[in-house]
Amino acid sequence: MTSNLQAIVQNTKRSAQSVAHLSTAGKNHALATIAQTLEQHIPRILAANQQDVEQAYRDQLPAPLINRLKLDEKKVKGMIEGVRSVASLPDPVGVRQIQRELTPGLILERITVPLGVLGVIFEARPDAVTQIASLAIKSGNGAILKGGKEALHSCTVLVELIQSALQATEVSPHTIELVTTRGEVLEMLNLENDIDLIIPRGSNEFVRFIQSHTKIPVLGHADGLCHLYIDGEADLAMAVAVTIDSKTQYPAACNAIETLLVHSAIAKDFLSQCLPQLEAKEVEVRGCDRTRDLFPHLKPATEEDWRTEYCALILAVKIVDSLEEAITHINTYGSRHTEAIVTSNPDHARQFQQGVDAAGVYHNCSTRFADGFRYGFGAEVGISTQKLPPRGPVGLEGLVTYRYYLTGNGHTVAATQSFTHRDL
Amino acid sequence: MTSNLQAIVQNTKRSAQSVAHLSTAGKNHALATIAQTLEQHIPRILAANQQDVEQAYRDQLPAPLINRLKLDEKKVKGMIEGVRSVASLPDPVGVRQIQRELTPGLILERITVPLGVLGVIFEARPDAVTQIASLAIKSGNGAILKGGKEALHSCTVLVELIQSALQATEVSPHTIELVTTRGEVLEMLNLENDIDLIIPRGSNEFVRFIQSHTKIPVLGHADGLCHLYIDGEADLAMAVAVTIDSKTQYPAACNAIETLLVHSAIAKDFLSQCLPQLEAKEVEVRGCDRTRDLFPHLKPATEEDWRTEYCALILAVKIVDSLEEAITHINTYGSRHTEAIVTSNPDHARQFQQGVDAAGVYHNCSTRFADGFRYGFGAEVGISTQKLPPRGPVGLEGLVTYRYYLTGNGHTVAATQSFTHRDL
Repeated sequence: MTSNLQAIVQNTKRSAQSVAHLSTAGKNHALATIAQTLEQHIPRILAANQQDVEQAYRDQLPAPLINRLKLDEKKVKGMIEGVRSVASLPDPVGVRQIQRELTPGLILERITVPLGVLGVIFEARPDAVTQIASLAIKSGNGAILKGGKEALHSCTVLVELIQSALQATEVSPHTIELVTTRGEVLEMLNLENDIDLIIPRGSNEFVRFIQSHTKIPVLGHADGLCHLYIDGEADLAMAVAVTIDSKTQYPAACNAIETLLVHSAIAKDFLSQCLPQLEAKEVEVRGCDRTRDLFPHLKPATEEDWRTEYCALILAVKIVDSLEEAITHINTYGSRHTEAIVTSNPDHARQFQQGVDAAGVYHNCSTRFADGFRYGFGAEVGISTQKLPPRGPVGLEGLVTYRYYLTGNGHTVAATQSFTHRDL
Repeated sequence: MTSNLQAIVQNTKRSAQSVAHLSTAGKNHALATIAQTLEQHIPRILAANQQDVEQAYRDQLPAPLINRLKLDEKKVKGMIEGVRSVASLPDPVGVRQIQRELTPGLILERITVPLGVLGVIFEARPDAVTQIASLAIKSGNGAILKGGKEALHSCTVLVELIQSALQATEVSPHTIELVTTRGEVLEMLNLENDIDLIIPRGSNEFVRFIQSHTKIPVLGHADGLCHLYIDGEADLAMAVAVTIDSKTQYPAACNAIETLLVHSAIAKDFLSQCLPQLEAKEVEVRGCDRTRDLFPHLKPATEEDWRTEYCALILAVKIVDSLEEAITHINTYGSRHTEAIVTSNPDHARQFQQGVDAAGVYHNCSTRFADGFRYGFGAEVGISTQKLPPRGPVGLEGLVTYRYYLTGNGHTVAATQSFTHRDL
C-alpha cells in the first residue's frame, strides 16, 4: 500500500532529480523569488503565527518553546535575509574534486552531486522552514519538512508561499513539501530507500529518539556536553574571560560549557577571581569535594553532574591534579562536541589537542566559536558529533555527495597494461 | 562485567592512541619490520596454513572458499610485498585541510586524525590479516581482527609474527589483536563506544548480516549488481569488447556486470556479434522475452534475474526502447555500485551520468575499473555503496577523520565584532 507520505516523497524525489542538474543561476533565481514572495506576504505569515502562539498559550506550552515559536516582523525579515544569503553562497554541486588520467584516454573525475531528498524534522521553530528550504534548493536536493503541531499554521503558510513562488521558476514546487500529521515522523524514519539524510532540529531527547529509530543517516547531535580546562600554567585573567564567555554568552547553546576543570596548582587563585564573576552573571556553581573544601558555600557536584548538559546557567567545577586527569575526564564524560584548554604552555596545548577526542579542540578561546557561520561556512546545516566526517559544524558540503565518472574509448581491464595515474 | 573481548579492545584503544601521534617514519619502520619478520618465517606460515587447508578438506568446505584460504610461497611473498607497498603510501594523518583566520589572532585548522579502533571481520582469506594490519598502522589506528574459524591457524601465526615484529618498534604489539572464538562477532558489533569502524570481508550475506546487526559505521557493500547499457548509437565492436571485459574478466568480482541492457534499435546487430563471444567464454546468457524472440535458443530471464548478483558466468539480457527505460531499470534494480553506458552520442552519455544514481557511472569503458588501485589510491580499504561519502572505492582516507583546532589568545564571542574568514 502506498501511503500519502510515500506518494509525496516519490513526487519530491522526482522533482529533486531535476533540481539536481539545474544551473546555479536557476537555483538562485528560485531563491530570490521565494524571498520576494515572502516579503509580499509578511502580514499573512504573522497572522498564521499568531494563531499558533494563541493556541500555545491555551495549551500552556513552556515559555522557551513559545519564544522559539513566536515570529515578529523583525524575525521574518531576518528569515527572508537568510534566504537571500543562501543564494549568495557558492554552489556546492558540480565541484570537481579529482580529475585524473588512469591510462591514456581513460579519465576519472569525482564530481559533487546532491544527496537527493532530505527529511527535516523539527520542533516549534517556523524559521527552520525557510532556512532548510533554501539550503535544500541551493544544494539541488528536495526536502520533506515535518514540523511540530504547535507550529502548524505558521509552517503551512510558509510552505504555501514557497511553493507558490516556485511556480514561476525552474524549480518544481514539489521540491519542498510539508507533512503535518503526527504518525508521519516514524513513517518518514522508515523510508530509507527514498530519504537520504535526516536533519533533526529540537531538544536532545528529540534528536536521540530520531537517531535510535532510523537507518537513514542523521546529521546532528543529541548532546553538547563541553568542557573547559584551566591548566596549571594559565593566564588567569584570560582564563576567567574565556570561562565567562563559554558559560554565559548563550547558555542554552550546545557549545556552551557544562563542566569547568581546574588544575589544583592554580585552583584557589583562579576560582577566587572567577567565582564572583560567574555569580554576578547568576551562574549556579556546583563544586567537587576539593572545590568545596576551598569554597564551602558552593553546592556539591555529584557524578550525575559530570553527565549533565544543563543548557542553563549552572556550571559544575572539578579540581584535577594533571593534564592527563583532565583529558581522561573529558574523554569519559564529553560528547565529542567542543573542548577547550586555557594554558600558556604550548606543549600542554599540543598534548590536550592530541589527547582529547572531539570535533573541536580549542586553545585559549571560547567554546562558543563552534558554529558554521563563525567558521566561515556561510551556513550551518548542523553540528555533528559522530566520529566520521562530516564532523563538527557542517555547511552546505554536508548536503552533497559525489560520483565517480570514468570516460574512455572502449577501455577494458584485460587490455590495460599499466596505469599512469596522472592528475590533470 | 568486562569480558575478555572488552579487555582486549580497551588495550588496543590505548595502544592506538599512541600510534595516532607517531611520525610517518616510525610507522613505516614498523611496517618494514613486519615485512622482514614475515619473510623470515614463510615456512611457519605455510605449515599453519596447511593445517587449516587439511581441516577444510576434512570438513568438505566449498572449493572457492578453500581456494581463498590456501596460501603458497608466491601468495605469501605477495602479502609481504603488500605490507611494503603500504609503507610507501603517503601518510593520511596530519593533513591540514583548512587553515583560516576567523578574526585577527584566532586561527582555525582542520587536521586529519585516525579513527581509533577498526573492527575487521573476515571469512577465510588469511591475506586480509597482513593487509588490514598494515593499513591500520599506516593510518594510526588499532585493529581487532576476527577471522573465520577455517583460517584459525593461519591467522594466529600471522598475528603472532606481526606482534613479535612490533616488539622492536615504536608501535605497541597490542595495536593489532586477533580474536578467535565464535561468539565474539556479535559482541564486537555491540561495542559502538570503542570500535569506530567495522570492515567486513566476505560474502554478500555475511556483509548484509553485519550491516544489520550494528550501530557502528560499516565500510563496504553487500551487493554489486552492476549493469552495462548499450545505447542505440553505439560503436558495436567497442560495445562487444566492453561487454566481454565487464562480464568475463573476473566474474566473481563485485564490479562485474550481471545485466546487459540493449537498445532495441541495435539489439539484433549487437547481440548477433556479442552472443557468440559470450558463449565462447562459457557465459550462460538469459534473455528477456524480446531477446528470446530474436534468439530463441537462450534461457529465459525472469524478474528474479534482474535482482540477482550471479558472481558467476551468467548474464541477463534485456532489450529496452530508450535511454530513460535503461536508467529507470538501473535505478530500480542496481545496487549503486558501478554502472556503464556505451554510446557515441555525448548527450546520451551526459544524460546517463546525470540520471543514474551510483558511486561510479562510466562511459565507454569496462565496469571492472572500479577499484582503489586502478583509481590510483594505492590501497583499497573497501568499496562503499552508501550514498554519503566516502563512496565507491575507498583508500586510506577512509580510515581517518578530522578535528577542528582553534587557537586564540583569549578570544571570546562576546568581544568579537566581526570575522575576517581569511584562508591562510
